[in-house]
Amino acid sequence: MKEDTVSIIPLGGLGEIGKNMMAIKYKQNIIVIDAGLMFPDDAMLGIDLVIPDISYLIENKEIVRGIVLTHGHEDHIGALPYVLRELHVPVYGTKLTLGLLEAKLKESDPSEHFKTRCVKAGDVVNIGPFQVNFIRVSHSIADAVALGIRTPVGTILHTGDFKLDQTPANNQVIDYHKIAELGNEGVLVLMSDSTNADKPGYTPSEQLVGEKFDETFRKADERIIIASFASNISRIQQTITCAGRYGRKVAVVGRSMVNVVSIAIDLGYLDIPPGVLVDLDEIQLVPKNETVILTTGSQGEPMSALSRMAASDHNRVEIIPGDTIIISASPIPGNEKMVHRTIDQLFRQGAEVIYESFSGVHVSGHACQEELKLMLNLVKPKFFIPIHGEYRHLIRHAQLAESVGIDPDNIFVAENGHVLEFSDKHGAISGRVTAGRVLVDGLGVGDVGSIVLRDRKHLSQDGILIIVITVSKETGTVIAGPDIVSRGFVYMKESEELLEETKEKLRSILKQCEGEQISEWSGIKSNVREVVGKFLYERTRRRPMILPIIMEV
Amino acid sequence: MKEDTVSIIPLGGLGEIGKNMMAIKYKQNIIVIDAGLMFPDDAMLGIDLVIPDISYLIENKEIVRGIVLTHGHEDHIGALPYVLRELHVPVYGTKLTLGLLEAKLKESDPSEHFKTRCVKAGDVVNIGPFQVNFIRVSHSIADAVALGIRTPVGTILHTGDFKLDQTPANNQVIDYHKIAELGNEGVLVLMSDSTNADKPGYTPSEQLVGEKFDETFRKADERIIIASFASNISRIQQTITCAGRYGRKVAVVGRSMVNVVSIAIDLGYLDIPPGVLVDLDEIQLVPKNETVILTTGSQGEPMSALSRMAASDHNRVEIIPGDTIIISASPIPGNEKMVHRTIDQLFRQGAEVIYESFSGVHVSGHACQEELKLMLNLVKPKFFIPIHGEYRHLIRHAQLAESVGIDPDNIFVAENGHVLEFSDKHGAISGRVTAGRVLVDGLGVGDVGSIVLRDRKHLSQDGILIIVITVSKETGTVIAGPDIVSRGFVYMKESEELLEETKEKLRSILKQCEGEQISEWSGIKSNVREVVGKFLYERTRRRPMILPIIMEV
Repeated sequence: MKEDTVSIIPLGGLGEIGKNMMAIKYKQNIIVIDAGLMFPDDAMLGIDLVIPDISYLIENKEIVRGIVLTHGHEDHIGALPYVLRELHVPVYGTKLTLGLLEAKLKESDPSEHFKTRCVKAGDVVNIGPFQVNFIRVSHSIADAVALGIRTPVGTILHTGDFKLDQTPANNQVIDYHKIAELGNEGVLVLMSDSTNADKPGYTPSEQLVGEKFDETFRKADERIIIASFASNISRIQQTITCAGRYGRKVAVVGRSMVNVVSIAIDLGYLDIPPGVLVDLDEIQLVPKNETVILTTGSQGEPMSALSRMAASDHNRVEIIPGDTIIISASPIPGNEKMVHRTIDQLFRQGAEVIYESFSGVHVSGHACQEELKLMLNLVKPKFFIPIHGEYRHLIRHAQLAESVGIDPDNIFVAENGHVLEFSDKHGAISGRVTAGRVLVDGLGVGDVGSIVLRDRKHLSQDGILIIVITVSKETGTVIAGPDIVSRGFVYMKESEELLEETKEKLRSILKQCEGEQISEWSGIKSNVREVVGKFLYERTRRRPMILPIIMEV
Repeated sequence: MKEDTVSIIPLGGLGEIGKNMMAIKYKQNIIVIDAGLMFPDDAMLGIDLVIPDISYLIENKEIVRGIVLTHGHEDHIGALPYVLRELHVPVYGTKLTLGLLEAKLKESDPSEHFKTRCVKAGDVVNIGPFQVNFIRVSHSIADAVALGIRTPVGTILHTGDFKLDQTPANNQVIDYHKIAELGNEGVLVLMSDSTNADKPGYTPSEQLVGEKFDETFRKADERIIIASFASNISRIQQTITCAGRYGRKVAVVGRSMVNVVSIAIDLGYLDIPPGVLVDLDEIQLVPKNETVILTTGSQGEPMSALSRMAASDHNRVEIIPGDTIIISASPIPGNEKMVHRTIDQLFRQGAEVIYESFSGVHVSGHACQEELKLMLNLVKPKFFIPIHGEYRHLIRHAQLAESVGIDPDNIFVAENGHVLEFSDKHGAISGRVTAGRVLVDGLGVGDVGSIVLRDRKHLSQDGILIIVITVSKETGTVIAGPDIVSRGFVYMKESEELLEETKEKLRSILKQCEGEQISEWSGIKSNVREVVGKFLYERTRRRPMILPIIMEV
């Protein structure tokens, strides 16, 4: 295009839940929105976490002016410890967002010094040619903002994660007026949260959770244990408020919950009546019916505090009959079985457990279809890009946009790495940059690729069978072995016969090579793999990885 | 107890979904209800399926009089190919149930001859001292029955899997009258399906699905593809009926769907208007807007027909823009991610996909809370045992029973292997027999235990590092190696430096042993494991399995 244009380049968060990251480029200026991580799926065996590929930003590091954050969830800030090693630029965020980020950065690299710029909802900040408006929204973490970015070409509105909660726990309603104002002025491009775009209706208010908590506190005869995401400060506030109302003390358990509560208190995000919050040691002395334990583990994570309590494996809290346990979260897709296992174990210990969304103890932090349509109608954008969601969510959101009258030609269901270029009149996918997933395994960032993962998968299914022989370089004869060692295939002590037969097979293959030049021996490996593999499959219907090793002396 | 008693011994289906199996014993007579399998959970790496441990029945094989089946789902009949190798007893079931069983038995062991006894809903059969009433119920497979078992001590009612559908697709409403009659006479023990016991309200009727199908057929401009469980004959019937109504042809794809349709046609369970069902070859010649494809793959199983279509990997059906695809099933817990991946891929191919329960294209086959209470009120049992469900479902069902007035002392939340003994007045858990899970991996039944699974888990996370050395028996010196081979740990070509340093470490450990007696060498293995393990963890934060192998020559 010859006209003046601004480009939007998604680096994460399209066609996936998590690792949200977006670049906006005007001439020789880039700002980045968010830098999140995502958790590995089942196929990524042994991987700890997944971050965006930022090759594009590293290539353009000279013109990156800053990183702007929408809120403090891992899927929006979790990649920053890696990203900030490469990009030494200022990071803009609200107080709680930066508080959580700083704790994270201190843990990953205490020596580094990072440039953070604290803003509050309502602020307007100029970053290069971009005028960024921080706009309050409701979400399942406090201090979340949408971003209204005025550029020389037009205004870009990025909702971040949001819902339309008319009665949020902190009374900080989404800033409809600012969004309406921008909509009235004219918004060039809207990017909006698609997480719940396949869910009809409205997401219930956080108030519903408060009412259900109140009912549970009123009825409970003994101790109450509440598990939630550590970052859900509204939920923590509701717990503390209810505890104060019913004369109960609250103790906090689980590393991330303890950290977040401490950050939230320091920054003034929790309103705690005097004497309500006590140490875990202290609460053991209080009668059970005057106590609440607030804990991590709402996703059934094996090492979390709640899972350890459920397995009678927590060194300080023991579940006892009479306990009422609230799981104030929904299982993230993929975690259902872990969550259910934890709930079952808690019931086995004699507790009453309140769980699942229909129980009212959890509501989503994302907008459903009617809210998304309201946002579209309020903003009236010329162009629309659904973001934050797997592919089906993006499609459903695009269909919603069409249903409220956005021109289908102006709706872009894009992919990470697409360059979406907009003038005040036209929009198009004009190119592609490197984008994708970088796997983090231990200290290794990006060093585990498809070959290693394929091997892990193979090993996980039927194990490994290792065959070792020592061959004389001079005579070409086998002087030790074949020895067989297996792991994860069969229980070796009970399979001696099978292994003996395998050795027999091996000896007859090796006999063919006896006396050959040693250079011929390496060629035999694929023959061993094939013959032994076939034999074992016939006998067991399993396909272990077969690894022949030939030692030369 | 001195009184005349009957015992109920659950061998599966309590505290778990699947592998349902129950023994009922009166004096020297046992009948068995169902013999199902379950699919492995994530921790059972490489396992194909899980069946009940039937040691108790094998020990008592002389007094087992027969096996009675409630319906033809895998979780109720899937273990029979294994069970019938051990127990040569007659199997009682309705026509469709036996049709599905016989296909399964033929596949697993065509030479064997099995004794099956075909019954129909309404029949009464005497098996030893047990009078078994087969009672029609509604479920997500045709020809499902509850069992009213009159014993000399009292009547036992086992619901099988059921829902209360007032308008089932086949018009065969549950036999309320027989259940009411037994309730009136007096039922000693009720065992009832707990699968949906934590869901409030009522499960919607199969009719809802029919209405939604009709709407979809009316609106679709191009081809329709419907994925469902092969065994859900109601869903297949609804597809065919709709196709007939709207002048479309239907072709069937996917091995299990083809099998079940053929069995259902042979046995008269499908009502097919002439010309509607055609071959897949033939349907390619029909205009797309006059076709329907009925396929397997509603759970996103990687090798299923729908998943292969979604991945553009099916050799005969290609997804094209304009296709309307109905996923007429809910994801089984644990399958969510596979199902979502398939849906995303279908959207990417340009299809419109209708999925999830709120879309109306699927309803559950199990009763929700209000239906379960109705069943309890109709049967008015003296004793109650919730069955078929994970532990939380059993607890919720017990709470429902208490809420309709069953004496809490007469409600037994039992475990597999418990012996529940009942006289006409008393009931108690009076003992315990062997029960549990047997893992099937390939041809191996029960040979993969916790050690093999632990190794597979370890291998799947960080791979394996194999260290081989050849040592002279005479001199105690290393004459070849150390060689290092790894799989699933790091990409070896990119990690030469790390491996070289590891060898360096190794050489210094080995030096300490040089010249020692060969008998000392085996002691060195744990030292190698520890030192190398620690070194690699420091360098990579990964813990591969370390396997030292010493060859002696």
